[in-house]
Amino acid sequence: MSPTGGGRGAGRPARRPGRPPGSGNTREAVLAAARAVFAERGFDGASLRVIASAAGVDPGMVRHFFGDKEGLFRAASRIPFDPAEAIPSLLAAGLDGLGERIVRFFVSAWEAGPAPFAAMLRGATSHERSAAMLREFVTHAVVGRVAAALDRPNPALRAALVGSQLVGLGMVRYILRVEPLASVPADTVVAALGPTVQRYLTGDLD
Amino acid sequence: MSPTGGGRGAGRPARRPGRPPGSGNTREAVLAAARAVFAERGFDGASLRVIASAAGVDPGMVRHFFGDKEGLFRAASRIPFDPAEAIPSLLAAGLDGLGERIVRFFVSAWEAGPAPFAAMLRGATSHERSAAMLREFVTHAVVGRVAAALDRPNPALRAALVGSQLVGLGMVRYILRVEPLASVPADTVVAALGPTVQRYLTGDLD
Repeated sequence: MSPTGGGRGAGRPARRPGRPPGSGNTREAVLAAARAVFAERGFDGASLRVIASAAGVDPGMVRHFFGDKEGLFRAASRIPFDPAEAIPSLLAAGLDGLGERIVRFFVSAWEAGPAPFAAMLRGATSHERSAAMLREFVTHAVVGRVAAALDRPNPALRAALVGSQLVGLGMVRYILRVEPLASVPADTVVAALGPTVQRYLTGDLD
Repeated sequence: MSPTGGGRGAGRPARRPGRPPGSGNTREAVLAAARAVFAERGFDGASLRVIASAAGVDPGMVRHFFGDKEGLFRAASRIPFDPAEAIPSLLAAGLDGLGERIVRFFVSAWEAGPAPFAAMLRGATSHERSAAMLREFVTHAVVGRVAAALDRPNPALRAALVGSQLVGLGMVRYILRVEPLASVPADTVVAALGPTVQRYLTGDLD
């Protein structure tokens, strides 16, 4: 499994003549409207119809560009992988070793294309709207999916704790670049953080 | 022990007549110069003399405002506690239970006055200069002091791992406010993260 940021456009229909559907302006207008509506209403409260209306385009065009609501959300949040695909893959092998698999996936995804993650964290620390987007993403797309697979008490807290360690790794290894954590091999990171993530998911937290 | 952000001015001499030494402009000019010089040269490479010169003031005035180089660094970084006091206190009781003590101190410091931490993280994700400041702080004031007290292999990596969990807690609990981690009591956070920090400090990382 690998990050899937490049796959989103694969099923995009051919361009219709007479209108530039990939036009930066239209696409950016939809993304800006999506960020505003998702931040204000949350993922569940937002709809493609309202976002299309806010952007002044037809809902069909939004679907044409981004597929469904989660695809639009991912593009608006600049999420470089598809949690709907990645998380079930990580969970498929069971809870044993899940901590190490999650850390390895996170490190691979970041090292394959750090810009979106870094942009996401930058935005989230500077703008309440971006923080709301990232909170929605972490809560809805990641915490919800992981928590649903855990047969342990406090699954949402467990998933949020995992998020805290991964976000902190991103900040210290990739954005602040504190040595020696910035330079150690991925295997060292996996060995150090894997047991932490595993305990948050399945261990005793009291 | 508590965060000591409010104590810095306690020993400040009385104002000299004819000049407003607490003047926002002068103070801010020194802080701005300090941020530039520390970011460019690092903590060890910077000097009060160079910073004073960059700010167009006398070095004595810098000492008058901020005491020594570390006091100036802390003010320029908006660090809300004094690592030279806090870290030895945390270490004084030995390595047993150190993980829990560190997490409890961090939570207390943040909850006593979150603004400086949040500003520090915001700045660090947005500006390379601020990132350099925070990296210097984490490396010099925290990692160095903690690492010196550990009789374990890879002490600097251990301290950076602790930093990754604490920075991530700050992001997810206080800035992104992901539930339920944002709302659980401090004791729950200490119970969950204490063993993580303890393992990073003294456990087996391979």
